[in-house]
Amino acid sequence: MRLTTLCYMEHGARYLLMHRIRKKEDENAGKWIGIGGHLEEHESPEECMVREIREETGLVPENLRLRGIITFILPDWGEEMTFLYTCAWKEGSGDTDADGMPALPACPEGVLSWVPVSAVMSLPLWEGDRVFLPLLRARDDVFSLKLVYAPGGALTGAILDGQQVDIMGV
Amino acid sequence: MRLTTLCYMEHGARYLLMHRIRKKEDENAGKWIGIGGHLEEHESPEECMVREIREETGLVPENLRLRGIITFILPDWGEEMTFLYTCAWKEGSGDTDADGMPALPACPEGVLSWVPVSAVMSLPLWEGDRVFLPLLRARDDVFSLKLVYAPGGALTGAILDGQQVDIMGV
Repeated sequence: MRLTTLCYMEHGARYLLMHRIRKKEDENAGKWIGIGGHLEEHESPEECMVREIREETGLVPENLRLRGIITFILPDWGEEMTFLYTCAWKEGSGDTDADGMPALPACPEGVLSWVPVSAVMSLPLWEGDRVFLPLLRARDDVFSLKLVYAPGGALTGAILDGQQVDIMGV
Repeated sequence: MRLTTLCYMEHGARYLLMHRIRKKEDENAGKWIGIGGHLEEHESPEECMVREIREETGLVPENLRLRGIITFILPDWGEEMTFLYTCAWKEGSGDTDADGMPALPACPEGVLSWVPVSAVMSLPLWEGDRVFLPLLRARDDVFSLKLVYAPGGALTGAILDGQQVDIMGV
């Protein structure tokens, strides 16, 4: 099983998202997703998460919190387990732009943006992301979510802490 | 990386432990450990945990809680990530013995016992278990622990939520 990390860095009422429009042959092409990547040898999940945040954003995370463990069943790409985090950024660890937001570097995988939390659900997202993103607001403990996709990328099932979730309309 | 689950089922002030003295060529030979095993295809961590508890004890878990994620660096056996749980057992899901404790089945991997929590640290344990077992009492949130072993099974390092832990005397 592939092991990955995924982070929604928060600043004010915004999440740091990446619009995946730059990488060739990207299974996330066109989608908006958080920051993250694959665990390397000898890495714990949070070690991977800190490294990925620094590599992709140049920022140093602060208050890194594990929020959920997501088991993806993806017929097109195999199985994946994702450790889902939120964090703030360490003030002074990067420059700020004219709005006082942390300045973001160019990234070869996509375009980084600070997106208002209220606008995130209107973006092109994976269907399963629409299940777990609201949980970042609703839940304070670490949740376990299993997301089952069909070939082609349609979400066919979601099980949250052992209970089937209604995915109609996500 | 191998993915496994491990549970310390609680009843009164006792943990359910297995004394690993029955399985041939067992890397845990002689040690006392919790209940658990490897994730199978398409399983989330808690699905694996529930299955292993039922298979090894015949009991149905209740209040299953993820307590920690442990990244093991084991030169003798490769890397392993363990999802650590505690739970109670669902009353009526098994018989009770003369002391009112849940009756335990014979298990091909070892001998199951309800061990007083106060006696657990005196048993033959992996050194790393001496790091995480006290956390089950001390911590209420989900911790992340990385345990680094040397060839032969000596613990050489422990990193808890990104901070080095003093392992002298464990």
